[in-house]
Amino acid sequence: MSYQKYIETNRKIADIGYSIALLSWDQEVMMPAKGAEARSSQISTLSVIAHEWSTDERYGELLHALAEDKSLSWEQKRNVELSLRDYEKQKKYNSDFVKKLSQTISKSFNAWQAARKANDFKVFAPLLKEIVALKREEAEMLTYETHPYNALMDDYEPGATVAQIDELFAGVKVSLSEMLDKINQSPQPKNLFAGKKYEADKQWKITQELLKKMGYDFDAGRQDYAPHPFCTSFSAKDVRVTTRADESDVFDMLSSSVHEGGHALYEQGLLEENYGLPAGSAISLGIHESQSRLWENCVGRSEAFWKNNFQLLSDVFPEQTKGLTAHDAFIADNIIQPSLIRVQADELTYHFHIMIRYELEKRLVEGSLEVEDLKDAWNEMYLKYLKVKVPSDNQGVLQDIHWSHGSLGYFATYSLGSFYAAQFFNKASQEIADLDKMIERGNYLPLKNWLNQNIHQYGRLFDASEICGKVTGEKLNFKYFKEYLEPKLAKVYQW
Amino acid sequence: MSYQKYIETNRKIADIGYSIALLSWDQEVMMPAKGAEARSSQISTLSVIAHEWSTDERYGELLHALAEDKSLSWEQKRNVELSLRDYEKQKKYNSDFVKKLSQTISKSFNAWQAARKANDFKVFAPLLKEIVALKREEAEMLTYETHPYNALMDDYEPGATVAQIDELFAGVKVSLSEMLDKINQSPQPKNLFAGKKYEADKQWKITQELLKKMGYDFDAGRQDYAPHPFCTSFSAKDVRVTTRADESDVFDMLSSSVHEGGHALYEQGLLEENYGLPAGSAISLGIHESQSRLWENCVGRSEAFWKNNFQLLSDVFPEQTKGLTAHDAFIADNIIQPSLIRVQADELTYHFHIMIRYELEKRLVEGSLEVEDLKDAWNEMYLKYLKVKVPSDNQGVLQDIHWSHGSLGYFATYSLGSFYAAQFFNKASQEIADLDKMIERGNYLPLKNWLNQNIHQYGRLFDASEICGKVTGEKLNFKYFKEYLEPKLAKVYQW
Repeated sequence: MSYQKYIETNRKIADIGYSIALLSWDQEVMMPAKGAEARSSQISTLSVIAHEWSTDERYGELLHALAEDKSLSWEQKRNVELSLRDYEKQKKYNSDFVKKLSQTISKSFNAWQAARKANDFKVFAPLLKEIVALKREEAEMLTYETHPYNALMDDYEPGATVAQIDELFAGVKVSLSEMLDKINQSPQPKNLFAGKKYEADKQWKITQELLKKMGYDFDAGRQDYAPHPFCTSFSAKDVRVTTRADESDVFDMLSSSVHEGGHALYEQGLLEENYGLPAGSAISLGIHESQSRLWENCVGRSEAFWKNNFQLLSDVFPEQTKGLTAHDAFIADNIIQPSLIRVQADELTYHFHIMIRYELEKRLVEGSLEVEDLKDAWNEMYLKYLKVKVPSDNQGVLQDIHWSHGSLGYFATYSLGSFYAAQFFNKASQEIADLDKMIERGNYLPLKNWLNQNIHQYGRLFDASEICGKVTGEKLNFKYFKEYLEPKLAKVYQW
Repeated sequence: MSYQKYIETNRKIADIGYSIALLSWDQEVMMPAKGAEARSSQISTLSVIAHEWSTDERYGELLHALAEDKSLSWEQKRNVELSLRDYEKQKKYNSDFVKKLSQTISKSFNAWQAARKANDFKVFAPLLKEIVALKREEAEMLTYETHPYNALMDDYEPGATVAQIDELFAGVKVSLSEMLDKINQSPQPKNLFAGKKYEADKQWKITQELLKKMGYDFDAGRQDYAPHPFCTSFSAKDVRVTTRADESDVFDMLSSSVHEGGHALYEQGLLEENYGLPAGSAISLGIHESQSRLWENCVGRSEAFWKNNFQLLSDVFPEQTKGLTAHDAFIADNIIQPSLIRVQADELTYHFHIMIRYELEKRLVEGSLEVEDLKDAWNEMYLKYLKVKVPSDNQGVLQDIHWSHGSLGYFATYSLGSFYAAQFFNKASQEIADLDKMIERGNYLPLKNWLNQNIHQYGRLFDASEICGKVTGEKLNFKYFKEYLEPKLAKVYQW
């Protein structure tokens, strides 16, 4: 009876949360410019309701009572345990702090936009200082054992710690630096697809086709254009992706759609009957990102993928691809080139962008770096790790939206995603007979089903390290990423 | 202070209402099929909140206190008075009734769809019987002075009464029957645009152009395709229209877009600062419809309109319009032809479709007609007024969605809209110098501004009969519709 009440309450809270998600999706994808002011008021009113309902004392009492209920199944127990954890975390926030943070974020986002316009970090710095101070206050409020940054990472990657990430990244740095050195000593292959025009509407057709092949269910989702590619959902049966067009680069929209499609398969793979429950939600950003990157990189940048899909590309762009081969596409799609902008980075150097941000954030939060010194620290690290000189703030410290939104503790999840992806893909390759051949034939369904069964269906019933152990038999291990990337680059760079 | 509190409360209630509107718009326009179940739960949860907030006792106390506040301005007083009226009406509903009605509507809508599939009214009749019984119960609950149907019309056209509509329609029937007889005795002009194909995307371009010329602000709205054309808003700065394409009829999408554009100009013409207040909402369905029909018919089906826009049509469809003229378009767009389906009816016979429905609804509600006899009564009236024999239930009594949705008391507002439109347009023609010439030059802004200033900006500060008196100096008077339509038909039918 009271578990039923728990389900009903959770579903109602989810109804509000998903309504906010729709208001936000519409804002990014459909809304006319002048609708912004009323929309912000609508989102704010619904957010207050969601917060009130999920911190309601009666809900708390129900959760505490259920936590003592010995008659619950393992799965029910786990749902209650996670909801109670979420509830108690929410209760730690006092409303003055929430209000102040939300106001500061709003000002800080405006300041970041102004700073981008002026191409001048100094315009943003005072507000970032306020954000950092508030996030430190938040870490204290939430409490933590060893490092305040752990409390912030918990929002995005429950269970992740500075100790764990520091150790992981230390190995990553060494290993990827060695690979990068090797690449710098090799002749750079030519991108034979560059310098031509690829009409957006034709690229769009390819992405729709690829999403279908991946098993993305268009009766339970849709793709639209938006300035920034993202995936959002309003239930497991309405999961939407967005993409963007760059007519000078045929690989950009394609890989962004496959990436978001990977996120979408995760959301569509959650069980409909778990709507509103922890079992009906994704584990963490790192595991979510593992799904997008598995499809984008392990599948979408493989030679097998191109053997199958080059035909599609050349059917749509016969002029631009005249005389070119699947192998040329594979090469062009895997060129490694240190650069300034994270979102345009290749599969290898990407992780340096992340490790730099992780290190800087951590130091800001622990107080060993001041915002005034952030820009210099940023530029030094880019020079050290990627050997690139940052020519302007917009191409440097101002490039990401995250800090202006108050999101600190987020970046590491992108790299974790890549590493989990390689480890899952390695296991899938062992368990699915002839996976590489399947991909070469464009048959992605065995892989999609494997992910559905081994990861998606459980939602949050297992946490990130548990699901990793359950699926692969061991903890997150960077060696799988190395073993995945190195042989591929050996082909591209003819080592 | 407490008026400020009133504004804030109203805005929050509006935030919920507009969020529901977005969830519904998305459902009609964007949502993938499988999203329906979760969406219905989301809409239902938000609807409960909207109802709870707008019937909250503390809100009621605030309204009662403000109703006694002598310091309020006239406009503030009027807002409070209307909110109090809405509040007290809402309080009359007991929650058991609301729940039962909503469940019955849901079943009834399914039954109507099944009946449409079977083309058999008998499948729908038992549920319609339940709906009628509940609507009679509702009328009793709401209380009324003379006729239960008045209580139901109040939802759509506050102030309208059976006595008033009966008197009005009696005159309409005589007058329009005379015109129809005359037409039946005249040779039918030929639609020279028929029998050709008009590509949807090209029609779309024309409608976008027309909406722009009308002064519809695309930075505060957008047009999309949907199965049924409609207009919805999420604030005065985000007002959206939908349209549909019929590639065999070049006039259908065009007039539907101009019609919805008229609705949209009303919503965009409400004042942003009145968001959530009665002063920021439309008066009634009849007045709303007057705006859409003024644009669709008085403007969009005038000879002056076609003199200006035929060029646009022939630029987009040069082959299909070869040898044809603006006058041919004017004729084709104004052919009168009694038919079976309301939404495809012309400007004259349309009102018979309405008067038949009004009469039948009224008799169902007062108990002088049983649902079992509805189909026969329908078919008899079609034969009597329009001289058409109804060949199947789908083309007869099953054609409209309204009853299955529990909307009884709605239909008359469509005709009221046409009559108000003619009366407003008559006044506008007197007050705007050379309005006909303006329309002939495609300059619609003086008309749009006149409507903004005389009608839109006031929202509900005046009721339907007050705004009619204020703008035109007299009560609703059918003679303006007759004086508008007859000379036009005289041209078309060469009387």
